[in-house]
Amino acid sequence: MDYIKKVCDDISGLNSVIMKKTQARLDNLTKPRGSLGRLEDLAKQICGITGKESPILRNKVIFTLIGDHGVTNEGVSAYPKEVTAQMVYNFLSGGAGINVLARHIGARVVVVDMAVAVDLKADKRLVVKKINYGTKNMAEGPAMSRQEAIKSIRAGMEIFADEFSRGIDIIGTGEMGIGNTTASSAITASLTKMPVEAVTGRGTGLSDEGLKHKISIIKKSILINKPDPYDPIDVLSKVGGFEIGGLTGIILSAASKKIPIVIDGFISGAAALLAFHIKPAVKNYLIAGHNSKEPGHKVILRHIGLKPLLDLGLRLGEGTGAALGIFLAEAAVRILTEMSTFDSANVSKEVK
Amino acid sequence: MDYIKKVCDDISGLNSVIMKKTQARLDNLTKPRGSLGRLEDLAKQICGITGKESPILRNKVIFTLIGDHGVTNEGVSAYPKEVTAQMVYNFLSGGAGINVLARHIGARVVVVDMAVAVDLKADKRLVVKKINYGTKNMAEGPAMSRQEAIKSIRAGMEIFADEFSRGIDIIGTGEMGIGNTTASSAITASLTKMPVEAVTGRGTGLSDEGLKHKISIIKKSILINKPDPYDPIDVLSKVGGFEIGGLTGIILSAASKKIPIVIDGFISGAAALLAFHIKPAVKNYLIAGHNSKEPGHKVILRHIGLKPLLDLGLRLGEGTGAALGIFLAEAAVRILTEMSTFDSANVSKEVK
Repeated sequence: MDYIKKVCDDISGLNSVIMKKTQARLDNLTKPRGSLGRLEDLAKQICGITGKESPILRNKVIFTLIGDHGVTNEGVSAYPKEVTAQMVYNFLSGGAGINVLARHIGARVVVVDMAVAVDLKADKRLVVKKINYGTKNMAEGPAMSRQEAIKSIRAGMEIFADEFSRGIDIIGTGEMGIGNTTASSAITASLTKMPVEAVTGRGTGLSDEGLKHKISIIKKSILINKPDPYDPIDVLSKVGGFEIGGLTGIILSAASKKIPIVIDGFISGAAALLAFHIKPAVKNYLIAGHNSKEPGHKVILRHIGLKPLLDLGLRLGEGTGAALGIFLAEAAVRILTEMSTFDSANVSKEVK
Repeated sequence: MDYIKKVCDDISGLNSVIMKKTQARLDNLTKPRGSLGRLEDLAKQICGITGKESPILRNKVIFTLIGDHGVTNEGVSAYPKEVTAQMVYNFLSGGAGINVLARHIGARVVVVDMAVAVDLKADKRLVVKKINYGTKNMAEGPAMSRQEAIKSIRAGMEIFADEFSRGIDIIGTGEMGIGNTTASSAITASLTKMPVEAVTGRGTGLSDEGLKHKISIIKKSILINKPDPYDPIDVLSKVGGFEIGGLTGIILSAASKKIPIVIDGFISGAAALLAFHIKPAVKNYLIAGHNSKEPGHKVILRHIGLKPLLDLGLRLGEGTGAALGIFLAEAAVRILTEMSTFDSANVSKEVK
């Protein structure tokens, strides 16, 4: 816990001096003031995060963390549990959605086995941080021990540190794990105190009946485990997931290193929510890539105070919405650093 | 008019056989069905437009057409008219917003002088299709003659044909011209029969008083000229602009060649609206890049039946929102063509 505390202590506010300079530069670019809307806000936030007047987002990294969930025994997903391990190989061979979108934006994908239920074939492209073979069934007891919850956050911090040494300018969060919308709904209900019904969706594609069943399982899990809403580590251990804890660690570490963080959909949102409850200042470093179809995602964004960049009806996860958001972040920064000013281009300013 | 008619006759519906195949392929990619939301719809539309099962959007072209507006004499813009010509040099030297975003997506920008009020320095990167030195003041009479309106559409078609021979897989529309939101509001009010107040905004940044004045000038222009809502050429000539007519021509030509068209904001929308009233089937080929801050833009999209991809509060024009939309279109197509299928990746399908 000391290491986690130390990382959190390094998370500070945004650099307001740089942000003021950025605003002045934005207002002097050859365009009507504010006419690039949220791209301008984004440029300003990224300057405030990095403390740089002319940030360059060259090294783009998407962390796709994978873990299994014991609660799948309750039949809460439209897909069999085996898909988690199968998808790892798909990520490694470059055929999954996140691989395609990461290539499209020029990002590298870091694929991490946090808790896949089986031992995977050795592959040097796979980062192995296996904390356990999936969580336990939270409908019967805690998903993991408190020690494991701390270990998962710490593992995320180590994954970030390793990649940081290879160069990182911006990150996107991503995940995969059959059953992980169920855990995310439980986390969200616990920390935001919203009713389970309001934060639970169809995941990969449940029927009406399946959704009803999923809600009842989440309610049961919360009732049995009594996660303490004032103790995010307790919430993570009782109803969370290893990939979610790992992402929480990555988010906290990235913020401590002044790296902008584009969060993906609902599961990434649950990790960000945990990070926010551990250290509220992390909020400054977060960029919501998109608005997921999962109802709990909106609740999380509202709770933290984030507005999503995109609203394309995505609900795949893996980091796909984060990848699209990183593209916009890079666009914003390039606008700031590459556009000419009224003076340099000899363009007249508005008549006052 | 014969040439325009001939181009319009070549505009057909979407290829439904290919679209059905595309849907089947999308449903077999390693992701829950429909989980990539609007990216999937976009992929399907582009396959339907191009008639290709695996389209490649390599050659991306943004057409930025520039023209002046006589109605600026009435003080309808926050910027002086001289800015139009100044911005042309900015486009040519690569310092404008559209240049930055076009570089970001790997598109080329075609800069066209349709009707700048002054003679510009010769530059081989500038396409000159000058039909006149700006429109006449529509608050005093028609913006242009009917012959000139036809000529502007025809010029757009020629511009497209020239670039098509260099290779085009997808286009974005863009424009610049001080005063052109005023013309676009007049076009929109005329063709959609919505009140002027509902389709008029602050353009580059008018005050409350300035907006009121702009509305009164648009009302006066419509009253004096009586544009015929059942004759789009009449509307273009009475209250339009040369860059708008040019874009209408480009849109019609692109559709006739089965090229997807990403429209930018309000002025591009007005051009699309004219194209739609000339040939309703053009709608199938249109992709709305974003939702502009200008209120008239929403009215146009609703009228044609388009849903914008992005909503980032942009109101710059030039093709900036179209550039971001093209990025998403390319993402959609890459998802379709590069993702692995359940079979190829050995991933289990959902439990039924």
